[in-house]
Amino acid sequence: MLVVMGSAATEQQVRDVCERIEALGLKAHPIPGAARTAIGITGNKGAVDLGVLEALPGVIECIPVSKPYKLVSRDAKAEDTVVTITTPLGDVLVGGGNIAMVAGPCAVETEEQCFAIAERVAPTGVKLFRGGAYKPRTSPYSFQGHGEDGLKILANVRKKFGFGIITEAVDNESLDLVEEYADVIQIGARNMQNFSLLKRAGRAKKPVLLKRGMSATLDEFLMAAEYLLSEGNYRVIMCERGVRTFSDFSRNTLDLAVVPAVQRRSHLPIMVDPSHGTGKRSKVLPLSRAAIAVGADGLLVEVHHEPDKAWSDGVQSILPEEFAELMLEARQIANVLHRVVN
Amino acid sequence: MLVVMGSAATEQQVRDVCERIEALGLKAHPIPGAARTAIGITGNKGAVDLGVLEALPGVIECIPVSKPYKLVSRDAKAEDTVVTITTPLGDVLVGGGNIAMVAGPCAVETEEQCFAIAERVAPTGVKLFRGGAYKPRTSPYSFQGHGEDGLKILANVRKKFGFGIITEAVDNESLDLVEEYADVIQIGARNMQNFSLLKRAGRAKKPVLLKRGMSATLDEFLMAAEYLLSEGNYRVIMCERGVRTFSDFSRNTLDLAVVPAVQRRSHLPIMVDPSHGTGKRSKVLPLSRAAIAVGADGLLVEVHHEPDKAWSDGVQSILPEEFAELMLEARQIANVLHRVVN
Amino acid sequence: MLVVMGSAATEQQVRDVCERIEALGLKAHPIPGAARTAIGITGNKGAVDLGVLEALPGVIECIPVSKPYKLVSRDAKAEDTVVTITTPLGDVLVGGGNIAMVAGPCAVETEEQCFAIAERVAPTGVKLFRGGAYKPRTSPYSFQGHGEDGLKILANVRKKFGFGIITEAVDNESLDLVEEYADVIQIGARNMQNFSLLKRAGRAKKPVLLKRGMSATLDEFLMAAEYLLSEGNYRVIMCERGVRTFSDFSRNTLDLAVVPAVQRRSHLPIMVDPSHGTGKRSKVLPLSRAAIAVGADGLLVEVHHEPDKAWSDGVQSILPEEFAELMLEARQIANVLHRVVN
Amino acid sequence: MLVVMGSAATEQQVRDVCERIEALGLKAHPIPGAARTAIGITGNKGAVDLGVLEALPGVIECIPVSKPYKLVSRDAKAEDTVVTITTPLGDVLVGGGNIAMVAGPCAVETEEQCFAIAERVAPTGVKLFRGGAYKPRTSPYSFQGHGEDGLKILANVRKKFGFGIITEAVDNESLDLVEEYADVIQIGARNMQNFSLLKRAGRAKKPVLLKRGMSATLDEFLMAAEYLLSEGNYRVIMCERGVRTFSDFSRNTLDLAVVPAVQRRSHLPIMVDPSHGTGKRSKVLPLSRAAIAVGADGLLVEVHHEPDKAWSDGVQSILPEEFAELMLEARQIANVLHRVVN
Repeated sequence: MLVVMGSAATEQQVRDVCERIEALGLKAHPIPGAARTAIGITGNKGAVDLGVLEALPGVIECIPVSKPYKLVSRDAKAEDTVVTITTPLGDVLVGGGNIAMVAGPCAVETEEQCFAIAERVAPTGVKLFRGGAYKPRTSPYSFQGHGEDGLKILANVRKKFGFGIITEAVDNESLDLVEEYADVIQIGARNMQNFSLLKRAGRAKKPVLLKRGMSATLDEFLMAAEYLLSEGNYRVIMCERGVRTFSDFSRNTLDLAVVPAVQRRSHLPIMVDPSHGTGKRSKVLPLSRAAIAVGADGLLVEVHHEPDKAWSDGVQSILPEEFAELMLEARQIANVLHRVVN
Repeated sequence: MLVVMGSAATEQQVRDVCERIEALGLKAHPIPGAARTAIGITGNKGAVDLGVLEALPGVIECIPVSKPYKLVSRDAKAEDTVVTITTPLGDVLVGGGNIAMVAGPCAVETEEQCFAIAERVAPTGVKLFRGGAYKPRTSPYSFQGHGEDGLKILANVRKKFGFGIITEAVDNESLDLVEEYADVIQIGARNMQNFSLLKRAGRAKKPVLLKRGMSATLDEFLMAAEYLLSEGNYRVIMCERGVRTFSDFSRNTLDLAVVPAVQRRSHLPIMVDPSHGTGKRSKVLPLSRAAIAVGADGLLVEVHHEPDKAWSDGVQSILPEEFAELMLEARQIANVLHRVVN
Repeated sequence: MLVVMGSAATEQQVRDVCERIEALGLKAHPIPGAARTAIGITGNKGAVDLGVLEALPGVIECIPVSKPYKLVSRDAKAEDTVVTITTPLGDVLVGGGNIAMVAGPCAVETEEQCFAIAERVAPTGVKLFRGGAYKPRTSPYSFQGHGEDGLKILANVRKKFGFGIITEAVDNESLDLVEEYADVIQIGARNMQNFSLLKRAGRAKKPVLLKRGMSATLDEFLMAAEYLLSEGNYRVIMCERGVRTFSDFSRNTLDLAVVPAVQRRSHLPIMVDPSHGTGKRSKVLPLSRAAIAVGADGLLVEVHHEPDKAWSDGVQSILPEEFAELMLEARQIANVLHRVVN
Repeated sequence: MLVVMGSAATEQQVRDVCERIEALGLKAHPIPGAARTAIGITGNKGAVDLGVLEALPGVIECIPVSKPYKLVSRDAKAEDTVVTITTPLGDVLVGGGNIAMVAGPCAVETEEQCFAIAERVAPTGVKLFRGGAYKPRTSPYSFQGHGEDGLKILANVRKKFGFGIITEAVDNESLDLVEEYADVIQIGARNMQNFSLLKRAGRAKKPVLLKRGMSATLDEFLMAAEYLLSEGNYRVIMCERGVRTFSDFSRNTLDLAVVPAVQRRSHLPIMVDPSHGTGKRSKVLPLSRAAIAVGADGLLVEVHHEPDKAWSDGVQSILPEEFAELMLEARQIANVLHRVVN
């Protein structure tokens, strides 16, 4: 924390602030400048909320300096975390130069639907299947997912096709079930700061895919992951899925710069969801290519064989044959970057 | 829903879109213009996701027309809802020209702290007390609240001073307890789209204060309330607490225009939280005055007798004597608008 | 500037950064903490762009500390600037507790229109009239204003009714004419960072009303004013008119917290434009009341006697009788705050 | 335009709205639904501002349907526009599968600096050179560019190395000179809605590179281009350079989805500026690759041989050797997409 004093601040005011800091058990480092004095603070273990210093006479501003995250930071672990997802088709690696692809419908509708899609994407070599059994919907009148019945359908997809399964949990009850049936537990964007759910997921025995909240800053995104790690779950995959801005031509604004930003600060891998990130079928392929090119550690893509009959989000689902083309291009672009799609 | 066809769309393409609409059991109304044709759709009960029409040949755009909310709408109930909060000090009305004031600390720290604040704000005539027993915190290392012990302290405040109690629930477990101990259940901004929690709160026997999510549109805010009403709880108070924007001098950007906007579309009352809405003590008083002047049905204000010793959010808490001044000004401004502070 | 070193930074890296700083003629102040070292920098007169230090080995982040504005700052002038606008009806004061009201149409359409509006608002005691002769329009096919002919109409309004005139200049050519015909030169939101125009306005002999850009931070807003003062024009009035956010129910999001924020940092007065700030007639009155209550030094309101026949922005214009009501309420609310509407 | 009536609107109110529409010389198409009636309007040539209908009794909302842009639209010209930039090194094509690369410093500092950079990037095969002679700077105290002297240096770069020159004009005076000295006239983000400047650039005899404003919607961006085309200049290149959002880890949020969005609606080519789009050297390369992968028609990259001595924006400039690597990768990624870097 750095405390900036006004140019009219008296020496006494500077001393008072320093004394207050020392009284809190911290160390004050005054830095006298030509126009004004700043005071550095060291020794804070995070327990003291220093914003209140802003109210002291002569103080202009308090600027936080230390980053609040610890376990997710490269300071704690310098090398890339590689998350291994075990599937009947073989292990899938995420991170450290390994790119994981995930395909499947927005919502689990019927076993026929899931099998039809699984069958069509299997030949592309994709090993992970997604599909929602619990659907957070803006409207209480929209289809909310089949719940455990949906999870059973996904388990059948796993059994029949060998895919690893990624699906969302929305509360502690559904998390118990998702942990049982699926291979990766997804925490959705709307729940990124549902700390009760994060704590439960941090105690789960399966990897967690954590989606960035719609208006989450980078620090908040990393701190949400910190909740998971602080409870003991180190198998965490971050996921960018678009943020909310004034821009109105796409459902969200896909913030691809967050990929190198997360990779710089944290050892955790980060995937991209171009389907929610754009909300329009015509933009999914270009943004998927861009996500691979920016260095994402994987893609989570909504695929439906009959998008215009989908029960939800058909407008942003691509066709299985488009996904096949994407797999091909993803491999080629990854190749340029000396990375591997698995 | 209105489907806009491109200027190069053929008559056959227009016919195809109309046929698709009719095949869905809906009615198509083509509107031929000089440059292009638009097609109105009627008969949709909400079950059909029409966005997929956007993928048909010749279609430029699908524009939603109907609003998705029903029970919260003035269409469903034209006159203002007045929520009554029963307290030992007497009933507090919110809405329909009645303004409710709420004061108290961000977090319940100790009984001494709560009593000290309650004692200092009681003479202002305020009848509702706030304080967090469950604290959603960005960092897992920050104080997370005392839980049920905190609720017991609040119950003691209620007993000793007669205040009605408003406090936040963060998951189904804490909601059971909050419903038992408090008079109003608060759903925080981070949980505005925690639909599992909303459904539970919709079945509660106490009024609910629903805070707007940090990046919630007006429709999403109203739809979150729709979840509550659709489960049977009609005693809902909306609350604006600032949205997230590029603007960096305040913690959030308080969007006061949402007050008349909600009041125009919905019969539900709407309060304002100027403490989280600004995040700075020096802005709480001016924005509180503005909130009353814009027509808010109440204020939720963080008050602490020793803000620089607060365990959380001290930087945005005002002093009891500042709150007393605010009560006075609120009454005067409300008077200009022919409204009543109670 | 504060340079934050990584926790893995070596002592040598810290020394290297310090040496680089000293080589730039500045002074380095290392602050060793438990986890990491920060280095304060003093002596920078603004000429050196220190962001490049971020690229040095071991550096995590560079945090700017000093504010870049000088002449607009309360550091340069502690007491409020009161701008005097000379009109045939008498001087109008803006700032220092004095609130100025401005009414008039979005665009100058005809002399009849301006006279009709002027006649209807005159009895309210308002002394300043607004109306655009140069209209920045999103579309090249929209009405762009009458130019000098429009200014002549405004001059006739001044002559006949005694109002002071505020109108917008959009380039150096129009500014020459606006300076000649009007009493206050308006710089619009789209031109807030048109630095060529700002420099010209800074050399004008009339006061300038500077609107905040649609996505201007507080620092950028103040720096735009700094351009005006640095060229010698100290008679500057800031004006909030709404910023662009994700929120879609109003044309812009009126950021009323910027009023106390500007007043804290700067001695310059700040007005509010609730018409562009909301874009909807139904929100102009509530937000106008809120602007007065938050402490704005004036309001700029679009008034039209036949809004549904207005050539532009009729949808956000209020009626003369609504403006009369607003004047009354503004006086009453100002009275609560011990301020004066003039 | 579509007028949505409230569910409580009477038949008389619907008729009144229709009559008002017909009185404006337009045609009304009522669409009666189960819950409410909507009224389509055809025949509007853009002259009538229909927003005012929103104020009529019974009306809930007016929804614009037609897009306001004409000449930039694919409706006006279906095939891609390919802009040809003539340089001593040969023609550079932009659009229609041709990708143009541009390199150079943020600001023209000295002839030595420009020559040093030009010499280092020439071997990569790049044919276009950028560098600012007129610099829009947030602070009046920052380096504002060398003006015509800077343009002369750029002309010397052209002469000695054969590069085509792209540089910014900030007002009508500088545009006259830029048109004379350079090969492409750049309009910066801050001037995207400086309509006076756009009109002048629309009459220029050189191609124009139009940067997206920091908070410009897609429609506003296209309408700014419409100003250029409507004045007769059809050689327009759009350029995404990041938009302003809450996200604070990068200078701006690069909105790559705008590339396919512009390409879908308009025949004009669109480039990307990853330097301003990210503001950090470490993000320029990843985002450059992503921009090529998303389908951009070119890149505008800040390159400096001594970034830490740059007079401006050194923090976002990459080294010549990094640019060489980027050229290589850009060719490889373009190859995957069957596009050509020239």
